[in-house]
Amino acid sequence: MKALKSLLLILLLLPLTAFAKAPLVFMTDFGVRDGAVSAMKGVAYGISPDLLISDLSHEITGIFDGAYRLYQTEEFWPRSTVFVTVIDPGVGTSRQSVVLRTRNGQYFVGPNNGLYTLVAEREGIDELRLIDEKVNRRPGSAGSYTFHGRDVFAYTAAKLASGQITFEQVGPRLPNSDLISIPYRHAERQGDVITGGIPVLDVAYGNVWSNIPQSMFDELKVRVGEPLNVRIYNGTKLVHEERIPYQHTFGNVPVGQPLIYVNSLMNIAIALNQGNYAVAHGIESGGECWMEIQKSK
Amino acid sequence: MKALKSLLLILLLLPLTAFAKAPLVFMTDFGVRDGAVSAMKGVAYGISPDLLISDLSHEITGIFDGAYRLYQTEEFWPRSTVFVTVIDPGVGTSRQSVVLRTRNGQYFVGPNNGLYTLVAEREGIDELRLIDEKVNRRPGSAGSYTFHGRDVFAYTAAKLASGQITFEQVGPRLPNSDLISIPYRHAERQGDVITGGIPVLDVAYGNVWSNIPQSMFDELKVRVGEPLNVRIYNGTKLVHEERIPYQHTFGNVPVGQPLIYVNSLMNIAIALNQGNYAVAHGIESGGECWMEIQKSK
Amino acid sequence: MKALKSLLLILLLLPLTAFAKAPLVFMTDFGVRDGAVSAMKGVAYGISPDLLISDLSHEITGIFDGAYRLYQTEEFWPRSTVFVTVIDPGVGTSRQSVVLRTRNGQYFVGPNNGLYTLVAEREGIDELRLIDEKVNRRPGSAGSYTFHGRDVFAYTAAKLASGQITFEQVGPRLPNSDLISIPYRHAERQGDVITGGIPVLDVAYGNVWSNIPQSMFDELKVRVGEPLNVRIYNGTKLVHEERIPYQHTFGNVPVGQPLIYVNSLMNIAIALNQGNYAVAHGIESGGECWMEIQKSK
Repeated sequence: MKALKSLLLILLLLPLTAFAKAPLVFMTDFGVRDGAVSAMKGVAYGISPDLLISDLSHEITGIFDGAYRLYQTEEFWPRSTVFVTVIDPGVGTSRQSVVLRTRNGQYFVGPNNGLYTLVAEREGIDELRLIDEKVNRRPGSAGSYTFHGRDVFAYTAAKLASGQITFEQVGPRLPNSDLISIPYRHAERQGDVITGGIPVLDVAYGNVWSNIPQSMFDELKVRVGEPLNVRIYNGTKLVHEERIPYQHTFGNVPVGQPLIYVNSLMNIAIALNQGNYAVAHGIESGGECWMEIQKSK
Repeated sequence: MKALKSLLLILLLLPLTAFAKAPLVFMTDFGVRDGAVSAMKGVAYGISPDLLISDLSHEITGIFDGAYRLYQTEEFWPRSTVFVTVIDPGVGTSRQSVVLRTRNGQYFVGPNNGLYTLVAEREGIDELRLIDEKVNRRPGSAGSYTFHGRDVFAYTAAKLASGQITFEQVGPRLPNSDLISIPYRHAERQGDVITGGIPVLDVAYGNVWSNIPQSMFDELKVRVGEPLNVRIYNGTKLVHEERIPYQHTFGNVPVGQPLIYVNSLMNIAIALNQGNYAVAHGIESGGECWMEIQKSK
Repeated sequence: MKALKSLLLILLLLPLTAFAKAPLVFMTDFGVRDGAVSAMKGVAYGISPDLLISDLSHEITGIFDGAYRLYQTEEFWPRSTVFVTVIDPGVGTSRQSVVLRTRNGQYFVGPNNGLYTLVAEREGIDELRLIDEKVNRRPGSAGSYTFHGRDVFAYTAAKLASGQITFEQVGPRLPNSDLISIPYRHAERQGDVITGGIPVLDVAYGNVWSNIPQSMFDELKVRVGEPLNVRIYNGTKLVHEERIPYQHTFGNVPVGQPLIYVNSLMNIAIALNQGNYAVAHGIESGGECWMEIQKSK
């Protein structure tokens, strides 16, 4: 009967073991025309063939774009997801290799170069650790100077996601203030005027996404259908100015007409119904780009 | 011994449980430069980390293209596969959110806008259900007006694929006749002449794919190597006219020469051996495009 | 107690069974705009829903590019990984359908057209087998003349990766010398001059990758920071000539300046720090392209 009890215990623990694995999500600027991404995945599956591996994007255009794509995505993944992020123009310099754990329990493995600016701000920093590259490095890779993505980041992340190392075993803790952040324009309301940054475009459609939250916009008490004055700037240069109505859905304006709406991140955005607003008016995104929305008196 | 029998039963059921999951296949027009597809997958894995998730394409160019890509693909997937299809230019209008089950047991989750035209015609409609968005919606997403793909379609599809809801729990049944279909030219034979639509191009190579089935073509009793008169139209405009031989394989014509052949869907197609027929002759695809094949007397 | 022992045996074998599956990695030139890749995956999952399926790339530009991407990737995957490779311009001709097992235990399923040139040379040929297409072919696919990728290669590879057939059951053994290889320029040192081929570019960044191994380069006893004479040729035509320093990391040269470095495959490469060397100087890759590196006296 003792053996039977052990059996029952094993049976109970089996599914737990299976579920203990955390998803491993890759984000890079490598594209998918060569074998770099696949080599990283091979290293990860070599650590555990049971890993759940998924791609965020391999077409990231820069550090701020990457920061925003993490911000757009991470909260929809289960807790303890491990994001491997290799947008690393400073590879080979003294930039640090780190793992960040945010307060909502997600892990971010990559260079300390600003990629985690937005997730750290929204979720809060739980702990930041420096990867000990003497220990957490693919065996036999010491002679390779350049492919941190495969030999350090994918390797360490797979160890972490599969539970083969703890977060503490990544390496020594760093002060939270060591996390590099990129400055950008935050959303702000002054009376009837709201300003906010344009961190990215919704690239597939050309919609212009601000970082103005719906909750701040609601303070203007705008009625559905009410037109607002919109000015879009690049630095100090006015790029476009237009009166645009606020609508719940694209279908409520004619094809080819603009609307202000709440996007999938619950932020204010501007679009043309079945058109490309950014191309139509030459709008770009990034740290220097911002918009002003004014309610008419 | 009773406990032992229970154990044996559990052991027998364990693999069944593991195999009960249905594949979840995503098709969108989002591209993969931002985080939208990954957010959908995160929601799905949040429902069950054991889901088998795969991508059909995220580069779909329109509703008819999407309809054809489903038609090209679904029959090769195991029964009960759940396809999440987000090509949704009418999002936010009164278009319905539905789940279609075809008679071969596949599920299609998405907007009722014509995307299922071709699979419904080939496989037959088993049941059509309206998604009850009050119940089948990601918790906390009620304030978001626009991302049905993530909050309704991916969420409902993951519930269905993981067996957490039945098809009946999707929502109320609709009459089969409520399924939206897009009109297009069907294949037809009159004597020695066959006409048929050009739903898509084989984009990677520029081959021109018709919807003329091999079985209809066989009625012309064409010999291998026999040249046929081919006319290609866009609406009423003749785009190209050429005599082209019928061959079993590309290798049977010289490099750069055209052939009529049976494509991987067992339909008639036209290609240049190691060339791009569509670019060479300005051929397009879609509901308006068609071809005529005539056997010489 | 006998039943109990059987149970314990089953429990011990269960995880082994789960781990016995080999990864299945797809590489094609199909792109991902249509359903061809997904149809192949559907066929594979139909054979076993427990397969671990991953993508190497579907943007391969030719046979030599494919050969190099396999070379760049396969060694980082666990032993017994099955690579399905469909870059097949000669489909339909008499080219053979084969499975290669290299001495390091990897499997390569595809056309015998040179795709395995570089992995066979590095890893060694263990056994080459001709696919018996009468047996190893998707049931019901005999009438389709063209989609070997789905009906023969994906089908056979999934059978092999899931353990449903042995390597021997693929078909009859061929002499190792039957494997087709593509000629290209090997790395060679004569005194202070090393020449080597440029098989591919690091496409995302425009870095120029040679096949000169670090070990051969080390024989020149170059100091870090020492400039070398570099000449880049296409056939007999000199495309570019420049003095370039050897550095361990990109960060050790100013932005926009060139460096010679050791890439992630431990071969010599040339790059511009945060620039595109290939575009800047019109460098191409392939069997005809090569470079000469000379140490100054």
